[in-house]
Amino acid sequence: MNRLLMHVGPSIGNRDVLLAGARDNIGFATKDFVQAMGDSLEGLRMVMGVGGKFQPFILPGSGTSAMESVASFLHEGDRVLIITNGIFGNRWEGIFSRYRVKCDVVGAEAGESVTPDMIREKTEGSHYRMSFMTHVETSTGVRAPVDSLLKELKKVSDLITVDGVASAGGELVDAEKRGIDICLTASQKAIGAPPGAGLLVASEKAMSQLADDSLAGYSLNLKNWLPIMKGMEEGRGGYFATPPINTVFSLQEAFRLIAEETMAARLERHKMASGMLRAGIRGMGMEVVAGEGIESNTVTGLRLKNSKQKDVLEKSMKLGVEFGSGVHPGVKPDYIRIGHMGWVQEHHVLRALSVLERSLKASGESIKAAEGVKAAQEFIT
Amino acid sequence: MNRLLMHVGPSIGNRDVLLAGARDNIGFATKDFVQAMGDSLEGLRMVMGVGGKFQPFILPGSGTSAMESVASFLHEGDRVLIITNGIFGNRWEGIFSRYRVKCDVVGAEAGESVTPDMIREKTEGSHYRMSFMTHVETSTGVRAPVDSLLKELKKVSDLITVDGVASAGGELVDAEKRGIDICLTASQKAIGAPPGAGLLVASEKAMSQLADDSLAGYSLNLKNWLPIMKGMEEGRGGYFATPPINTVFSLQEAFRLIAEETMAARLERHKMASGMLRAGIRGMGMEVVAGEGIESNTVTGLRLKNSKQKDVLEKSMKLGVEFGSGVHPGVKPDYIRIGHMGWVQEHHVLRALSVLERSLKASGESIKAAEGVKAAQEFIT
Amino acid sequence: MNRLLMHVGPSIGNRDVLLAGARDNIGFATKDFVQAMGDSLEGLRMVMGVGGKFQPFILPGSGTSAMESVASFLHEGDRVLIITNGIFGNRWEGIFSRYRVKCDVVGAEAGESVTPDMIREKTEGSHYRMSFMTHVETSTGVRAPVDSLLKELKKVSDLITVDGVASAGGELVDAEKRGIDICLTASQKAIGAPPGAGLLVASEKAMSQLADDSLAGYSLNLKNWLPIMKGMEEGRGGYFATPPINTVFSLQEAFRLIAEETMAARLERHKMASGMLRAGIRGMGMEVVAGEGIESNTVTGLRLKNSKQKDVLEKSMKLGVEFGSGVHPGVKPDYIRIGHMGWVQEHHVLRALSVLERSLKASGESIKAAEGVKAAQEFIT
Amino acid sequence: MNRLLMHVGPSIGNRDVLLAGARDNIGFATKDFVQAMGDSLEGLRMVMGVGGKFQPFILPGSGTSAMESVASFLHEGDRVLIITNGIFGNRWEGIFSRYRVKCDVVGAEAGESVTPDMIREKTEGSHYRMSFMTHVETSTGVRAPVDSLLKELKKVSDLITVDGVASAGGELVDAEKRGIDICLTASQKAIGAPPGAGLLVASEKAMSQLADDSLAGYSLNLKNWLPIMKGMEEGRGGYFATPPINTVFSLQEAFRLIAEETMAARLERHKMASGMLRAGIRGMGMEVVAGEGIESNTVTGLRLKNSKQKDVLEKSMKLGVEFGSGVHPGVKPDYIRIGHMGWVQEHHVLRALSVLERSLKASGESIKAAEGVKAAQEFIT
Repeated sequence: MNRLLMHVGPSIGNRDVLLAGARDNIGFATKDFVQAMGDSLEGLRMVMGVGGKFQPFILPGSGTSAMESVASFLHEGDRVLIITNGIFGNRWEGIFSRYRVKCDVVGAEAGESVTPDMIREKTEGSHYRMSFMTHVETSTGVRAPVDSLLKELKKVSDLITVDGVASAGGELVDAEKRGIDICLTASQKAIGAPPGAGLLVASEKAMSQLADDSLAGYSLNLKNWLPIMKGMEEGRGGYFATPPINTVFSLQEAFRLIAEETMAARLERHKMASGMLRAGIRGMGMEVVAGEGIESNTVTGLRLKNSKQKDVLEKSMKLGVEFGSGVHPGVKPDYIRIGHMGWVQEHHVLRALSVLERSLKASGESIKAAEGVKAAQEFIT
Repeated sequence: MNRLLMHVGPSIGNRDVLLAGARDNIGFATKDFVQAMGDSLEGLRMVMGVGGKFQPFILPGSGTSAMESVASFLHEGDRVLIITNGIFGNRWEGIFSRYRVKCDVVGAEAGESVTPDMIREKTEGSHYRMSFMTHVETSTGVRAPVDSLLKELKKVSDLITVDGVASAGGELVDAEKRGIDICLTASQKAIGAPPGAGLLVASEKAMSQLADDSLAGYSLNLKNWLPIMKGMEEGRGGYFATPPINTVFSLQEAFRLIAEETMAARLERHKMASGMLRAGIRGMGMEVVAGEGIESNTVTGLRLKNSKQKDVLEKSMKLGVEFGSGVHPGVKPDYIRIGHMGWVQEHHVLRALSVLERSLKASGESIKAAEGVKAAQEFIT
Repeated sequence: MNRLLMHVGPSIGNRDVLLAGARDNIGFATKDFVQAMGDSLEGLRMVMGVGGKFQPFILPGSGTSAMESVASFLHEGDRVLIITNGIFGNRWEGIFSRYRVKCDVVGAEAGESVTPDMIREKTEGSHYRMSFMTHVETSTGVRAPVDSLLKELKKVSDLITVDGVASAGGELVDAEKRGIDICLTASQKAIGAPPGAGLLVASEKAMSQLADDSLAGYSLNLKNWLPIMKGMEEGRGGYFATPPINTVFSLQEAFRLIAEETMAARLERHKMASGMLRAGIRGMGMEVVAGEGIESNTVTGLRLKNSKQKDVLEKSMKLGVEFGSGVHPGVKPDYIRIGHMGWVQEHHVLRALSVLERSLKASGESIKAAEGVKAAQEFIT
Repeated sequence: MNRLLMHVGPSIGNRDVLLAGARDNIGFATKDFVQAMGDSLEGLRMVMGVGGKFQPFILPGSGTSAMESVASFLHEGDRVLIITNGIFGNRWEGIFSRYRVKCDVVGAEAGESVTPDMIREKTEGSHYRMSFMTHVETSTGVRAPVDSLLKELKKVSDLITVDGVASAGGELVDAEKRGIDICLTASQKAIGAPPGAGLLVASEKAMSQLADDSLAGYSLNLKNWLPIMKGMEEGRGGYFATPPINTVFSLQEAFRLIAEETMAARLERHKMASGMLRAGIRGMGMEVVAGEGIESNTVTGLRLKNSKQKDVLEKSMKLGVEFGSGVHPGVKPDYIRIGHMGWVQEHHVLRALSVLERSLKASGESIKAAEGVKAAQEFIT
């Protein structure tokens, strides 16, 4: 029987996107591939909300690869500021601890977001080469209050990098208008393609500082990829390392579908699905992890009271839906994560809630039958 | 009309392998994915000719990612020896020039291989932390005389890394028996899956030296991936960064097909196809780039006399076959590359020769009709 | 966005079954095809509940083709009895009016079933060469009380044919035990493969009467197909007319999945889904077409009060679910049909109800939000 | 390893056409399906060379179903004339022997065609309601001299039916210009879709004689299908019996590809491939079954001298190519059939010849290595 993936990335699949990646083998120098890469680079601009002045990159690897590639803009001894709302915000420190940069970190409690005040307090009198923040924190589903945080970060840093891994394609990124210099994501999240590529856009200002003597290594050094990306958009093939060809064909199809749907409709759909899910969770008497007003469109943490995530996840899987495990140690006593991104529709949420009601109850929570699906259905009626 | 890809990687495709990567989305924590990764790690051992004492890794990215991950075994100030027969041998220097290691390089003329003598001459009195060599040089199709070179390298270096990108799956690697410490490849070459993963095996000796304070960065740091890989083989999911899920399902299917065919039959098939191709090339009065006795099973350079690669490639493409461009500046006056790896069969070679006869002739070479296909057909009769 | 088909056949699809029919072309004389046909003939026995003494047939065409092929057992001047509960029961008369047989017909009101008494009354003192009845009437969703009707039919006819088009695979057929001589279906109904084949099993008694001088034409003459079917089960290819090769590969996969699930679990799943659907329909204050106790597992008619089928169907389609139109003129004032067969799961029913609540309301019915999904969810909790 | 089907139908496959038939289930009343059927009916006109005055039909079943559906134009006691060049010409008699019509038959020797004189001799003083001829006789590969035969048939019959099963899509049919009243084919032949549908076009004159009291049965009665076909072209869904939905989606894609290629280029490609194949066969010292000047573009019989078809077919299959068995008892001593239709390209022919050289030799024929592929390659150079 068919199973539904509502993990936090990859999440719900799309047959056309998947089959686009299974076409007969074709070389990376062909017109078809150059077109697919060119279309995907342009599609990335659309999702990130940037124009022709931003340089897009599609790299082999994962979202973490895209994060690490930002070392291409850093030099030995640089000072950076890391704003973190959880596990994936912390990852910036994990990465740069391998490089010769100095990291200042501002962190929030699990389920909450760093505030402008916390930044001000920490950074008084400091100046940073670059600051980092996470748009949607995948470990808790918290969406940072981007505008108010950016306001503070702009005061103290030359360049600002936003991790849009769990947001781009499902939340309004609007990187150019907001003055974000670097924004990155991965193919398998709210864009809805399979994993295999890290994606990044960089502003003119950032690109002007891309240097040979950066801290970046080789395969994730954007300097090495720049001529390839430029060539692809100009219709010329080129080679630095083998691109994730099949993932790029899937990305092309995903971006085509996104353009067809329009970004506005896509964001509205994500908003609807997440609102419906939260209505259902609350309807059955449970709580979401993210604090009120900072719940994301794409990832929802469901806080457990009397049950263990292992039980809930296993029972849900038996009932046909795969959710994600809770990974942030700060969420007490336990929780699970639900991904609703990319190709999510109302019926996926309904199915998830139908399963959750039963798996939660069977795991020890007191759930009254049908209250979750009822609330969700009312939400969309 | 259908087109044949005989590029140097990806090369000829396989429908079942491609469709395995287009299955409905599934999470990386599922039993199915853990099985696929476990099977692929075991399959990698089979292709590399190593047993349970070697630790296999499957990383998001490309063959170049696998190459760079070897920094996980190196430390600041290490001295390394690079044996190079062309562009991809040179890449080791490109990579390590970004790290704080000292590189000695021994290189060969285009179409030839470094010899034991050349190594002896260069390394007299020296000792290296690690030495690097390329099994099959993708830029020229030269297969290094592995055994005689290894003999020299063992004398002067602690660890030996072999780049098997263009060989593993189509040439005898036999890493354990030959005393290779680290051998790596990519998913899209002679294993025949789509691009998206770098693959690597490391000996017990190498693994014992994997250290926290290595030169490796974050996402290509094998230390970070080790618990994940071990877990996958033991049936437990785990997460460090998102694996190339779809590529891994394709790899699982590719390794299944390889085991079904047997490695011995697979190597024989590659040998037959490459012999047939060379017979055809010579039959039509043309020459191969690689010197006699060092031609590989997987990549053949075809040396042009009176034509330009651009013409030959474009005309061949119009006739339905995509070959690779010549990229080594040392091959004069010009050449193209033909990939015959993974799922190559006799009829692919016949088709390639039928097209080459016509595209070469139309580009300025004097080719007598049918002499190429005739020689190839005689070769297999 | 993906759409759900809950029509009465084909209904909900299955990716593996569909892709099995899209494998590379292969001849009907190959081992693979002979195996696929052999497996499918055996699978048909499983679904029909018959053993080796019944001869199975898989014919190019549709369920109607299978119906017409029954002419292979009839001769000029034969008298037949047709028991009909609606449009598809009537079809027997439509077919045999083209042949030289005399038809007596016993029919029921829309939404009801012919009763044993009605048969007794009509047939007193008569004898028939063959009688026909429909297990589940696709036009209304009525499941005939098979056992009590068969009891009467056995008294007055030599052979009994049951139309299992809307039942086989979703209802208990048990043809051998029940003494049915001929039972037929189509590939695209509760077996869950694409359309393209009519399927039929015939008892030893029926087969002994298959004659050269029957009324059957050429391509639907079972006499012509018999040696082919026998050969396929014995591992020999054979040709009479081109079989629906791709449909047969899909059938093979469908029967494989059915055997894996077990027929018992499959019937239980259909029962659960249909019960859940009826609970939801009644929960929202609507009614089903079929009378109480004769509702089928596979097709449900939903009776409309203040709305028109055209409106409900169009609005449902816009919300992503395709239902079937009402086709029986006797159901007043109007109705739609919902198919739940083959690969139906609980979440499909929930999705259907979520959409129906909204499309019915928007079309003029008074529906209280969420009452349908609530009742359905309670049904399965 | 991949295998090539060069049987006489289905023959060589096309991935896009196959996958079009594996899309998610969709109902026959949807806009998408109505469009697919409408496009396919129009595509059928293109392939048959007829305009809007001809009525096209797409029926569930096979080519034989389409043949039998012609009974829709006949009445009890009609006299018909059958021109046959082999097994499939004879099939008309097989079909109509089941109906109450009188058949006169004019037949040719195996490998030859009936001539105008033979028709004149047989039909002197007679008049027929309908005459039948086969464009390309699948059992021998003979293409009838259509124009000269039609000239005779027009003199003696009201309506003329041409069996284009092995020709439509690979030979010039031009039914309207030539004055053919009814022309039919099947989905899996030179149109290149999977089997599952019989296709037919009928002239205004033929359609004006379609009657309720024809000899046709039910499911192959064109009278029953007429409103459905008309509706589909006018954008309305409709139901008589379940159409072969998935085959129709494949047909739509096949016709799209045919229009893209253009019929002229398609015919030229078939001519080239068949010429190349015959050159190869003769180059290796073997003979084709069809007499000179009447060899078809789509099917070639290869006459064996010292070998048996069973051996040649089995050895060819082991070498990766599946050919068709010889089925006409009049071809002495033995022969095999090679299909080259639909998506055939030069390289398929080269591959077939490469395999044939070896399988024929291994089966007892004296074949000099490479003479077949050499001649074929020269043919296209």
